[in-house]
Amino acid sequence: MVDSWVNLAERIGVDLHVELGGPGGRRAALIRALREAVRGGRLPPGTRLPPYRSLAADLGVARNTVADAYAELVAEGWLTARQGSGTRVAMGVLSAPSGQPGRTENRRGAGRTPVKAPLHARGPRYDLRQGTPDASSFPRSAWLASYRRALQQAPNEVFGPGDPAGRRELREALAEYLARARGVRAEPGRIVICSGFAHALRLLFAPGGGVLGGPLAVEAYGLDFHRGLLAAAGVRTTPLALDADGARVERLARERAVLLTPAHQFPTGGPLHASRRTTVIDWARARGGVVLEDDYDGEFRYDRKPVGAVQGLDPERVIYLGSVSKSLSPALRLGWMVLPERYVDGVLAAKGEREAWVSVLDQLSLADLIGSGAYDRHVRRMRQRYRGRRDRLVEALAARAPQVAVTGIAAGLHAVLRLPPGTERSVLKAAAWQGVALDGLAAFRHPESDMATEDGLVVGYATPSEHAYGAALDALCRILPPDAGPGPAPG
Amino acid sequence: MVDSWVNLAERIGVDLHVELGGPGGRRAALIRALREAVRGGRLPPGTRLPPYRSLAADLGVARNTVADAYAELVAEGWLTARQGSGTRVAMGVLSAPSGQPGRTENRRGAGRTPVKAPLHARGPRYDLRQGTPDASSFPRSAWLASYRRALQQAPNEVFGPGDPAGRRELREALAEYLARARGVRAEPGRIVICSGFAHALRLLFAPGGGVLGGPLAVEAYGLDFHRGLLAAAGVRTTPLALDADGARVERLARERAVLLTPAHQFPTGGPLHASRRTTVIDWARARGGVVLEDDYDGEFRYDRKPVGAVQGLDPERVIYLGSVSKSLSPALRLGWMVLPERYVDGVLAAKGEREAWVSVLDQLSLADLIGSGAYDRHVRRMRQRYRGRRDRLVEALAARAPQVAVTGIAAGLHAVLRLPPGTERSVLKAAAWQGVALDGLAAFRHPESDMATEDGLVVGYATPSEHAYGAALDALCRILPPDAGPGPAPG
Repeated sequence: MVDSWVNLAERIGVDLHVELGGPGGRRAALIRALREAVRGGRLPPGTRLPPYRSLAADLGVARNTVADAYAELVAEGWLTARQGSGTRVAMGVLSAPSGQPGRTENRRGAGRTPVKAPLHARGPRYDLRQGTPDASSFPRSAWLASYRRALQQAPNEVFGPGDPAGRRELREALAEYLARARGVRAEPGRIVICSGFAHALRLLFAPGGGVLGGPLAVEAYGLDFHRGLLAAAGVRTTPLALDADGARVERLARERAVLLTPAHQFPTGGPLHASRRTTVIDWARARGGVVLEDDYDGEFRYDRKPVGAVQGLDPERVIYLGSVSKSLSPALRLGWMVLPERYVDGVLAAKGEREAWVSVLDQLSLADLIGSGAYDRHVRRMRQRYRGRRDRLVEALAARAPQVAVTGIAAGLHAVLRLPPGTERSVLKAAAWQGVALDGLAAFRHPESDMATEDGLVVGYATPSEHAYGAALDALCRILPPDAGPGPAPG
Repeated sequence: MVDSWVNLAERIGVDLHVELGGPGGRRAALIRALREAVRGGRLPPGTRLPPYRSLAADLGVARNTVADAYAELVAEGWLTARQGSGTRVAMGVLSAPSGQPGRTENRRGAGRTPVKAPLHARGPRYDLRQGTPDASSFPRSAWLASYRRALQQAPNEVFGPGDPAGRRELREALAEYLARARGVRAEPGRIVICSGFAHALRLLFAPGGGVLGGPLAVEAYGLDFHRGLLAAAGVRTTPLALDADGARVERLARERAVLLTPAHQFPTGGPLHASRRTTVIDWARARGGVVLEDDYDGEFRYDRKPVGAVQGLDPERVIYLGSVSKSLSPALRLGWMVLPERYVDGVLAAKGEREAWVSVLDQLSLADLIGSGAYDRHVRRMRQRYRGRRDRLVEALAARAPQVAVTGIAAGLHAVLRLPPGTERSVLKAAAWQGVALDGLAAFRHPESDMATEDGLVVGYATPSEHAYGAALDALCRILPPDAGPGPAPG
């Protein structure tokens, strides 16, 4: 029997006692330890657990052991998992009867209002996590109308084997739309439909058959979900520091490709400066490199003219990637790549000879939605709505937490709240106690980055439904630190 | 400059002159050579080209070079490609003006009626390829009704991030349906939704992260598309011989898994005998092996009681795989796995944390279609229709080509026509000249199998639309060889 103390303090601020030699093997021991840590309050609700790869390395056990343990605890209701946001202690565990996921002993939260989330609540009380659009705003009528037209007008061959590049109708609609709305130089023959950004990454870096290889430069802040996916595909990522002009692409050297979010750096929020755009294209031309442009929320720009796609500067050096996951819903699983000519066949080969992957009816529906103008109308309506939410966020903070600077607000579905140094972790704990789900900046930081650490919160203002947004803002303001540091200089 | 004569006679009966050192590199040279071979009639319309991996090995060039050449010629209209059926010379090239894909010099077909397929015809004149259901029979009204109900009744959370296992509603509907219709012992927690059989294979054998590894035993006859996909994933396949009782599973030895089509061997058509079912489960239990059960057309059984799934014998030793690709349409990209408990987490991890892959609305629609009984009604209607087509095929052959034995007709969407030894290739050439697209048995044979070669045709009777079926049967009878071998004994 080997008892080990696993220090999770660096990541989540708790020590976790794991008897890895206990009955039932390591998986069972880990499940027991995590369950007890949640029940005993050492892992408060909302706490983000380390990625299973990291914890496996820390514990010296197989990744699957940790993945299994997490999955089991998700199934039991102790933990929740979500794309881009990792695994967290469930909010609902606070109010369950003992023996089941139960009310924690309120050790740290004495004096605060206890959370009364319903048992087996699907999500947190106030959901300000980034990554998804307002689910209550999906344009059901418009989508159904397009789907009906697509289904009724489809020739029979639609129901036969599909084109792995995707339906011509959709590729033509996208070529027109992306040129008009995003400045992309697209032609249907260079567009490949896929099920979303992650699918595109998998196709581009498919082991053995992909068209790209590592090392891949990425921005020092980004989604760890993407970094994990690349690591699983055997692609090493190297971090590029960020400054006020965006990623420091002048530092690119021997990397073979670079993944950027030029319209709206994720998550810090600025656009890539024009000079940097030229620089990265020059690098690609000189070194035979390629730029992956993740245009994840390019439609949502509030204060300025749209920032066009870098792809427009040189379509042979940029792979442009987009999807409907922010503009309509991630539930549709529909995205696209605009590829340099030389990559088209390789991507189609990686996609798998005759595999369409995406429902042909959905492809035809989106083509109809774009062609009928309903897609543009929906985007405009959502842009207004999200702009209104952003304004309410900025106003609430100005009135109730003026010491907190808000950045990255010119575009997108989230903002970054800059916190006094050293306060991020305690603010996240307060958020968990208050039932507010959101991420700290640290969760997005590339582990190898040498940038100075900055404390901050990433606030997704699109996720709550319209009626729940006000309460979420109130809860957010309650968890922010009082003005303890050097405040703004007086008048 | 190196000139090479590449002997393709073994595969497709032609010599192909390739100047691999010509202007523009190997890819350009190969495109030129193939284009000339089509234009000059050396590669007649409908001819199946070798898989690009094989041709690349024959030519000593990179796979991508051949894949690129094929893709270019598909784009130009000289070749067509289709899942499960490989790359073929296009039918439409026969009637084009010179300079474009053009009328071939009718060297071998003198005296036959020249084919007058329209320019840029999407497919062959008579399509008897296996692999797809009748595209004209997709139940548009029922599907639209289910889609509308699903969309209108969906709670908002449907449009947020999805469950990587798939929607609970669909997994519950499938558990009930598969138990009732296919004898599968399923529970929703062990079902994972995916985009089809190929996606399931990719998840199970994902390099680095999959739950299974090779070597994988496969039936000596099967889809080369699947073998190619497995090879790309680094999985070695070993062929299992077939006899009248199905795959000879008693020969399984050190393989770690076996892929079978127990309900209806693909493509030869028999069910796996009950004793073999027991044998393969015993093997799996004794050796820690796992059975992959590809139930690709299990709903379509005509003459006997349904053959239940092997999975019912031991759900912990069998991975059951199904999809709507035969029952509804491959255009939906919707399939499922029923997994042994111990594989669920690993498959979900390979699927990618929070990636749903399949449109959530399609999942809810299929759940509604099954729950409302419309799915069963559609399957019953199609079973009647396909049974009628099978009967017409058998009758036509009995009347007009009694020397040809038809096998594998008790189930499914295709039959096998047994040909006199040594005639398969010439029959396929005649088929190409007549505009009849179908495959010979040789196209499905595992390259390492030691079974004696048998000549035959795989006739897919589901693919033509209802009104085109009679003409396709007439064309089929015209290409069959006259009774040159030992006929049936008189009296």
